[in-house]
Amino acid sequence: MMKILVLNGPNLNRLGLREPDVYGSKTLSDLQEQLITYGKGNNISVEAKQSNHEGELIEWIHEAAGEFDGIIINPGAFTHYSYAIRDAIASIEKPVVEVHISNVHARESFRQVSVTAAVCAGQISGFGFEGYKMALDYFQRGNKS
Amino acid sequence: MMKILVLNGPNLNRLGLREPDVYGSKTLSDLQEQLITYGKGNNISVEAKQSNHEGELIEWIHEAAGEFDGIIINPGAFTHYSYAIRDAIASIEKPVVEVHISNVHARESFRQVSVTAAVCAGQISGFGFEGYKMALDYFQRGNKS
Amino acid sequence: MMKILVLNGPNLNRLGLREPDVYGSKTLSDLQEQLITYGKGNNISVEAKQSNHEGELIEWIHEAAGEFDGIIINPGAFTHYSYAIRDAIASIEKPVVEVHISNVHARESFRQVSVTAAVCAGQISGFGFEGYKMALDYFQRGNKS
Amino acid sequence: MMKILVLNGPNLNRLGLREPDVYGSKTLSDLQEQLITYGKGNNISVEAKQSNHEGELIEWIHEAAGEFDGIIINPGAFTHYSYAIRDAIASIEKPVVEVHISNVHARESFRQVSVTAAVCAGQISGFGFEGYKMALDYFQRGNKS
Amino acid sequence: MMKILVLNGPNLNRLGLREPDVYGSKTLSDLQEQLITYGKGNNISVEAKQSNHEGELIEWIHEAAGEFDGIIINPGAFTHYSYAIRDAIASIEKPVVEVHISNVHARESFRQVSVTAAVCAGQISGFGFEGYKMALDYFQRGNKS
Amino acid sequence: MMKILVLNGPNLNRLGLREPDVYGSKTLSDLQEQLITYGKGNNISVEAKQSNHEGELIEWIHEAAGEFDGIIINPGAFTHYSYAIRDAIASIEKPVVEVHISNVHARESFRQVSVTAAVCAGQISGFGFEGYKMALDYFQRGNKS
Amino acid sequence: MMKILVLNGPNLNRLGLREPDVYGSKTLSDLQEQLITYGKGNNISVEAKQSNHEGELIEWIHEAAGEFDGIIINPGAFTHYSYAIRDAIASIEKPVVEVHISNVHARESFRQVSVTAAVCAGQISGFGFEGYKMALDYFQRGNKS
Amino acid sequence: MMKILVLNGPNLNRLGLREPDVYGSKTLSDLQEQLITYGKGNNISVEAKQSNHEGELIEWIHEAAGEFDGIIINPGAFTHYSYAIRDAIASIEKPVVEVHISNVHARESFRQVSVTAAVCAGQISGFGFEGYKMALDYFQRGNKS
Amino acid sequence: MMKILVLNGPNLNRLGLREPDVYGSKTLSDLQEQLITYGKGNNISVEAKQSNHEGELIEWIHEAAGEFDGIIINPGAFTHYSYAIRDAIASIEKPVVEVHISNVHARESFRQVSVTAAVCAGQISGFGFEGYKMALDYFQRGNKS
Amino acid sequence: MMKILVLNGPNLNRLGLREPDVYGSKTLSDLQEQLITYGKGNNISVEAKQSNHEGELIEWIHEAAGEFDGIIINPGAFTHYSYAIRDAIASIEKPVVEVHISNVHARESFRQVSVTAAVCAGQISGFGFEGYKMALDYFQRGNKS
Amino acid sequence: MMKILVLNGPNLNRLGLREPDVYGSKTLSDLQEQLITYGKGNNISVEAKQSNHEGELIEWIHEAAGEFDGIIINPGAFTHYSYAIRDAIASIEKPVVEVHISNVHARESFRQVSVTAAVCAGQISGFGFEGYKMALDYFQRGNKS
Amino acid sequence: MMKILVLNGPNLNRLGLREPDVYGSKTLSDLQEQLITYGKGNNISVEAKQSNHEGELIEWIHEAAGEFDGIIINPGAFTHYSYAIRDAIASIEKPVVEVHISNVHARESFRQVSVTAAVCAGQISGFGFEGYKMALDYFQRGNKS
Repeated sequence: MMKILVLNGPNLNRLGLREPDVYGSKTLSDLQEQLITYGKGNNISVEAKQSNHEGELIEWIHEAAGEFDGIIINPGAFTHYSYAIRDAIASIEKPVVEVHISNVHARESFRQVSVTAAVCAGQISGFGFEGYKMALDYFQRGNKS
Repeated sequence: MMKILVLNGPNLNRLGLREPDVYGSKTLSDLQEQLITYGKGNNISVEAKQSNHEGELIEWIHEAAGEFDGIIINPGAFTHYSYAIRDAIASIEKPVVEVHISNVHARESFRQVSVTAAVCAGQISGFGFEGYKMALDYFQRGNKS
Repeated sequence: MMKILVLNGPNLNRLGLREPDVYGSKTLSDLQEQLITYGKGNNISVEAKQSNHEGELIEWIHEAAGEFDGIIINPGAFTHYSYAIRDAIASIEKPVVEVHISNVHARESFRQVSVTAAVCAGQISGFGFEGYKMALDYFQRGNKS
Repeated sequence: MMKILVLNGPNLNRLGLREPDVYGSKTLSDLQEQLITYGKGNNISVEAKQSNHEGELIEWIHEAAGEFDGIIINPGAFTHYSYAIRDAIASIEKPVVEVHISNVHARESFRQVSVTAAVCAGQISGFGFEGYKMALDYFQRGNKS
Repeated sequence: MMKILVLNGPNLNRLGLREPDVYGSKTLSDLQEQLITYGKGNNISVEAKQSNHEGELIEWIHEAAGEFDGIIINPGAFTHYSYAIRDAIASIEKPVVEVHISNVHARESFRQVSVTAAVCAGQISGFGFEGYKMALDYFQRGNKS
Repeated sequence: MMKILVLNGPNLNRLGLREPDVYGSKTLSDLQEQLITYGKGNNISVEAKQSNHEGELIEWIHEAAGEFDGIIINPGAFTHYSYAIRDAIASIEKPVVEVHISNVHARESFRQVSVTAAVCAGQISGFGFEGYKMALDYFQRGNKS
Repeated sequence: MMKILVLNGPNLNRLGLREPDVYGSKTLSDLQEQLITYGKGNNISVEAKQSNHEGELIEWIHEAAGEFDGIIINPGAFTHYSYAIRDAIASIEKPVVEVHISNVHARESFRQVSVTAAVCAGQISGFGFEGYKMALDYFQRGNKS
Repeated sequence: MMKILVLNGPNLNRLGLREPDVYGSKTLSDLQEQLITYGKGNNISVEAKQSNHEGELIEWIHEAAGEFDGIIINPGAFTHYSYAIRDAIASIEKPVVEVHISNVHARESFRQVSVTAAVCAGQISGFGFEGYKMALDYFQRGNKS
Repeated sequence: MMKILVLNGPNLNRLGLREPDVYGSKTLSDLQEQLITYGKGNNISVEAKQSNHEGELIEWIHEAAGEFDGIIINPGAFTHYSYAIRDAIASIEKPVVEVHISNVHARESFRQVSVTAAVCAGQISGFGFEGYKMALDYFQRGNKS
Repeated sequence: MMKILVLNGPNLNRLGLREPDVYGSKTLSDLQEQLITYGKGNNISVEAKQSNHEGELIEWIHEAAGEFDGIIINPGAFTHYSYAIRDAIASIEKPVVEVHISNVHARESFRQVSVTAAVCAGQISGFGFEGYKMALDYFQRGNKS
Repeated sequence: MMKILVLNGPNLNRLGLREPDVYGSKTLSDLQEQLITYGKGNNISVEAKQSNHEGELIEWIHEAAGEFDGIIINPGAFTHYSYAIRDAIASIEKPVVEVHISNVHARESFRQVSVTAAVCAGQISGFGFEGYKMALDYFQRGNKS
Repeated sequence: MMKILVLNGPNLNRLGLREPDVYGSKTLSDLQEQLITYGKGNNISVEAKQSNHEGELIEWIHEAAGEFDGIIINPGAFTHYSYAIRDAIASIEKPVVEVHISNVHARESFRQVSVTAAVCAGQISGFGFEGYKMALDYFQRGNKS
């Protein structure tokens, strides 16, 4: 059974509370439960964590290297400046998928730059919670055909 | 039954022939057949077309407005400069999903600018043919939860 | 009797259907009929065509060199990147007037750059269909006094 | 009867004297008389003023808010840096049309940036004195159709 | 008794009339009266003037050097390009406080550059009329502790 | 009684010890005591905290959403790059005021960019400890008049 | 016998008619005949085509992959923005030489950027029709010594 | 006898009072008297004026066109943004020499851009009052040998 | 005996595990032991710590101010954006030396900007573990001769 | 008999020794001999020199003005910054052809800027030693047809 | 008697031969003789040298430090990139005046940047040979009054 | 016995004479003697040369390829623009270490760009003469551990 770690970055603990027109009205718990359930139905063991601390995310990425088959990460605002998270992703050999709930390409210009995507397998942006499930599907159904 | 139009832009008719380390060794026909089959298994009627002509893609987008429930588009290199395709997408009310086979964020800097993504529902990049299937799933499973 | 060619570029066939708050609710046919009628009342023979194809617009400009006394062109999104249309305009000696329905200076920053205006006689932006009539007036009433 | 204020900015009192290959050989008085006459023939009361003083132009714009139905302004070189005139235009509700005698898009690069056009109804550039008459026509024949 | 000069720059005579969602519905007279009254209650003699003329503001700053203990200035749009006002402020030794009614950091990008703030004691932005009173408090309660 | 949270960011625990010509010779404790005292005298309950950890500041902002009537924040160097703090401020509905002890507009160019100010009510810069008191006054005396 | 395809892009059908001071007074037919004759004399079979359509040029490049030993292309204005033609060139394994009739380095700044040259074998600019013959020589005399 | 107009721009009336380490301790009157005396000794009639008003400087330039043989101008801070003064200089045929008291190339970066110098005969920067006398010498001893 | 603190930033705990072609195959423990041993042989007491947390690094720098004679820091990716670490270094009076294992000047362009080096005594880049020993030598052998 | 000077700039004396994958394995002597021989067979007298000194190249260009019918120059790295060589080329009336052995458009971004090409007749890049022979052909077969 | 060294940089040995519309028709010898004669009449001993070699100019500047009272330098194209000459000027304590024959502000944009002027006493540009005499006058008549 | 060449670039012959607050008061001879002595004590044969001529430095680098085990170079101001020296370094296979006496990261912005460091083994900046000794240590103690 495949093991996938789902990491959410800063302010994603405010999901459902924060700007619902941008991020929807469901909470982080809702998201995490949906993903665990979805994983179970697809033979994937999902573990989900959230942190507002760059250093903690970096360490979870390091630790995942030995324990998980892949990582789904929504680095939140760290996407746009955390070269430290970029280096953490580059330092492990497991595939990482970057997910954004909103379509970052349609928002402020600073959100259109991702310093982390270049070292990920790919990026999914704009599909709400569904984006995380797409990423799970990707891990399960395998790579580029 | 949902109807989805899959559009591939310039040079994607060279899939399998062109830079296989970047784009894989399967052809455009392989891709299109996979998607039609995948659609059938998921209750989606998929129609797939390719063009190297910007004007033709624009017109297919226009025509799709009345016939399809959504569009999946890989605009190829037009992604990076065709404001005309951007305007075409903005001119219809059906949702459009932008897909890239390779991870554009990890390639030449000009490929990291998408002038079309801002008017799409979202963007999927880096997952090979699987990216198109993710987009089909998105249309079928519905929008942001 | 003066002969003027009116060219509309990509997506202008969607006039009336597309973003009516930006472009109004009248269609391309409405526009073309208004201009032909307006021309008749002012002793100008107006011919009006639209294309979503850059190459076709280029060829219509070439052909117009021998047949028309001037061109009114709304290059649509090609305004912002088609150096090929710029070269086509520069390659003929007949005056060309660039028209935009909306005020491009008040929209996205990419719409504020015109690569074609430098080789036109002038540019009119923001006056709806009236802008095309202003251009016809210009051709009829003659040049800079 | 419609009342329109025509404002000309810095150095336009040098019309006819200054760089005649760019601006023609007619003077500011010629221009102003042509517009008043043209207005009379079209049921528009035209008042025309010129100033080299940014502050005076700002105040004329303010005063026009209550007296005129619209303003035609050629801000001269202020076009390219006077955010104060921009704010003055934005502070009134009457429509303002920006006119340039020469085609600013074909001149020095600093002339291709207009900080005022974004808050105007539209911009007309390159048609000599005729441009001001086009603007009068616009006010008379009404807005976007 | 401390003497403070309050200078308001271009278009601030339109306060209350201009874009009330940005600037509120009170007028310049309201502001000036509030400040004089507030000054009286705090042992500060306030004199308040407004000009749309860059040169006049410069001269008021020069004159204030000998007469006032400090200046509160809202340079309006001159904030963003008037190096001449910057030099005027730098040419006197009395402290100057820059105030903006709206939060300039949350508006158009050109409003986020202040060419004058670098030679002021400090800048207050976003607090409406209250900002001017904060500046008066600053003068009365003294400098950095 | 109004409750205000005062947050100081990285290195502000070094106040009084660090570059006294820029930041003065009083310490963080001095500042916090002054504010609590000042609050008491003005019917405001002030709570003051400092952190060098971006994640901790983010979480204090989140928690304040339910407990305080407003936040005064000096994000220190995070002002210039922490989009994560920006998102935290945007995620709550309580007003936030950004304060800087020194005049950031008169220092290194990187200090002139604030990525957080755009989502605050306003910004106060250059008035030493007094700036925090101005912010308290703002909360007490109410909003834009 | 070596087979070389000579492609000319947009507006090159206007050769001889268009800006003769820049491009000379001979026509496209003159050029094509000269090259065919020159080829015959050097044991090269030359086929020459011109198109104003980006998509058509792309398809001719694709088709040439199986039929020709190399391509000489003057992409005209597409040189400066057609990443789609760049991708087409990159998608074939046959060598491609980019030729410009005028010295693009001595003209408008936009003409000094070539988005296609990086994927060609080399570029020849400024030698009139002679440049195409140099390219034929290159194909015949072989590669880097 | 040659007639030369000497114009000083904004804040130069503060000479001797303002930043003496940059501008020296002599006043504007001192400068103007020195130049009149120097002119007398060299058969030049010097008239000297100063204004803080852009519009007044523009009008003095216009008026000088018919009365003086040349202008020496120190546009002060207007040097760096007044395209209106640039246009005024370009609108007359008499030679204009730009003078700066301090070496603008060794100061803030914004002072290193002159928008006016390109339409002057030349620029002299860094030689204190002596720079104006150099300019008078230039007018008397004639042009480029 | 001199006391030196050696700080390693984010991801350096992955040394030996991470991209061995860039960073070599020895681990962080290897590095730290080498430095302690090297220090002993050179009469320097070395203490070595690593953190992935920006805030923790800041606090270690603060604490070092009173305890150590100098700091050697490899800020990892924080080098490129942590103005907070820059401020921490500037807030202490002890000399700080910046070290990078790889030659940052030969890698991605973002790695060529150091926001921290300007407030350090100097920077050493490209010499592997040896770079840290060079820094120890610098502290022992004294400053600029 | 036509006389052509072939100049090679800095580091080209390292040809064959330096980065053979970029520049091939033949030496500068090989190149010079090939060109002299090729010249003889085509009725051109070729003289070939190399220098690593900018000043020496400048002087050879000056001297060539009176002795040669044209110059072929490969300025090496000077191509990218030597405005002095540019001025030397512009100071003579004989035609100059710029040649690069490798395709500079496909290498580091700094190599894509030529400050010298604008004052040459044209540029040839990417064809190895063959590029110099193309230039000789150009001189012999004459100019733009 | 004052001793002044006059240095002319690359290509100025081509004066009179090179682009006479820009630089006039007199030669370098004419210039040098005029300056020596002018010096004699003004009690200045002038020595004049020219070099196309950056290194030679640097060494002449070094040597002048002990022998001359000042330097007049026209660095030619080195003005725009030779930081080495800039450092040479900064390394001596004698005043240096930068002179340009043509008005560099009215030419190509690269000529508007001087990397050397910031370390000179001042710059004179646009007055032909007269500019050098102005500089001699400056040395004789003394500094900023 | 290892042989190392120490090259110093332009103006370093002015060491001790030039800006002693930046570069210290010891001379180039002092430096060279220190390095020779230091080398002797560490079994390294040091040869030290200085030149103000870019071409001479290039040739010394070429010659060193066969004679020395490595080069220590302080390219002085050439660091910031000499792509020719960069190419020379890249053209040899021996390791090169770049040294700067002052901390270039803390000085003018142009000094923060090194065009040569990318092709060196590494860079040492800010440690005075000690930096050269660090480089010698590096050569002796060997490479990245």
